[in-house]
Amino acid sequence: MIPEDAVQIVEVGPRDGLQNLREYVETEKKISLIRCLAESGLREIESGSFVNPRAIPQFRDMSDVIKGVLDLEGVKLTALVPNLKGAQNALESGIRSLIFVISVSRSHNLNNVRLTPEESLEELKKIIELESAYAGMETQLDLATTFGCPFEIKVKEEDILRFVERAGAMGIRKITLCDTVGFANPRQVEQITHTCMETFPRITFGVHFHNTRGLGLANALAAYGTGVRFFDSSIGGLGGCPFAPGASGNVATEDLVFMFNEMGVHTGVDIHRLLKASQYLKEILPNLTLTSALFKAGLPGQVGLTGKILA
Amino acid sequence: MIPEDAVQIVEVGPRDGLQNLREYVETEKKISLIRCLAESGLREIESGSFVNPRAIPQFRDMSDVIKGVLDLEGVKLTALVPNLKGAQNALESGIRSLIFVISVSRSHNLNNVRLTPEESLEELKKIIELESAYAGMETQLDLATTFGCPFEIKVKEEDILRFVERAGAMGIRKITLCDTVGFANPRQVEQITHTCMETFPRITFGVHFHNTRGLGLANALAAYGTGVRFFDSSIGGLGGCPFAPGASGNVATEDLVFMFNEMGVHTGVDIHRLLKASQYLKEILPNLTLTSALFKAGLPGQVGLTGKILA
Repeated sequence: MIPEDAVQIVEVGPRDGLQNLREYVETEKKISLIRCLAESGLREIESGSFVNPRAIPQFRDMSDVIKGVLDLEGVKLTALVPNLKGAQNALESGIRSLIFVISVSRSHNLNNVRLTPEESLEELKKIIELESAYAGMETQLDLATTFGCPFEIKVKEEDILRFVERAGAMGIRKITLCDTVGFANPRQVEQITHTCMETFPRITFGVHFHNTRGLGLANALAAYGTGVRFFDSSIGGLGGCPFAPGASGNVATEDLVFMFNEMGVHTGVDIHRLLKASQYLKEILPNLTLTSALFKAGLPGQVGLTGKILA
Repeated sequence: MIPEDAVQIVEVGPRDGLQNLREYVETEKKISLIRCLAESGLREIESGSFVNPRAIPQFRDMSDVIKGVLDLEGVKLTALVPNLKGAQNALESGIRSLIFVISVSRSHNLNNVRLTPEESLEELKKIIELESAYAGMETQLDLATTFGCPFEIKVKEEDILRFVERAGAMGIRKITLCDTVGFANPRQVEQITHTCMETFPRITFGVHFHNTRGLGLANALAAYGTGVRFFDSSIGGLGGCPFAPGASGNVATEDLVFMFNEMGVHTGVDIHRLLKASQYLKEILPNLTLTSALFKAGLPGQVGLTGKILA
């Protein structure tokens, strides 16, 4: 039977959603988006990425964005950092929850951050060493390509477990297993999340799914069944791979929240307020097609059907 | 744990997919589409609807379509019939597996077939009486609005069970529980399918989900978990409600088959051949946007990524 425990929806739109956009979103709009999201009841928001602005110009204003949202109460703000320099910049901006990313796949890690996975682990170690200097600092890990790699296709379970073990030995207590390009299937999700949780009971595991091939929510349901309670998603379904034309991006927060709310699983998110955040996103990025199915179709009570439908 | 039994994918595109199209699909193209679908390994195909051509002109050529596909070996061809007249026409065309539809919701049944549910049950009784005159004839039931109604929103479980009981008493042995407008959630699916199967062990239950709010595959996964093995889906995600602009239609066969195949669940369907059927559909209906995520994104091995992706 499907469990009934509450879940934490982790909003990654301001980071994973915006990072692939060509269009620059002004600082004030980024701040307003994060505030809109917080107003819906979301309690963890990934606010952006402290990367080299030449690599991703979208995030050249990260320090100012953080300044504009640090006063949000009851919201855990996180930021992605690809290296030590990014971590230092993030900490200087005032943020204390950092997310470091390593790809299980060597080719993907090289392509993504121009480091071997071993070099990334060394970088992670240096970042964790900063924890003694910054009160309240916390480092989490995003384990990219856990469920498949665009270059190597299959990823071995032993490789996943090896990274989890090494990160755990460094003191990491939260790891998000990421289906970077939408290859995961529910059985694989069940097996990998189950094995990770059984093998490393002291680590909290989250999941991050893309809806590229439509399986995002089914994968989330499978992960929920094995006991995962932290779920990344992106407002409007923003994000994903710009090299798969027409493909959906991240699991849309609206759809994920709708699924859990309808199931009676506590998310703490008000779906009506969340749809206001979607509306705001649509206003600031009018040329973008939001892939959230709920945003497109509307809530059940809002549907004004008048016609003929068979089955 | 997710089970491992084989499933039967029931292709409903030629019926549920085409019925809402304004564009008439020529008889030869309908026949070719059904043949393409059969070539992919699909073993049950709903070939169309024997309705009054004034109600749905798309199906004015049903008898000719059936003539063009009756020779398909190893494929169970079905047709939807909304009343006795439709059943008689279907049987005259040579088809022997009929699907009758009743909505659990009174308002929806009135709107859909201009009969009260009680009148529909009377019609069903008359159709079943034809079975003694036609060797090999079989009548199945589609129970529409099982998971919610666009007019009445909620549907009571006792109402669902009452219809199942009455249909079962008439001799119906296969009932498909239909989420006509995409209101279902995985817990509701788990509860209703479980209760139906426990209460009526002699009836085989199938499910029919729409992806209107993105939950189609998650709902299918939940139904699979409770023991359902028959799943309706529509090639290209065709179908669904024309009154919810931009909303997805039926669960796409490509996505459903991809999910089960990737999970190692036997479907008997070759995904490459199935994508040829999607391609054919796109050729004959070039103005249509197919909502299948897999069709848009391509199979994992086919993705040619070259760029920068973070998590």
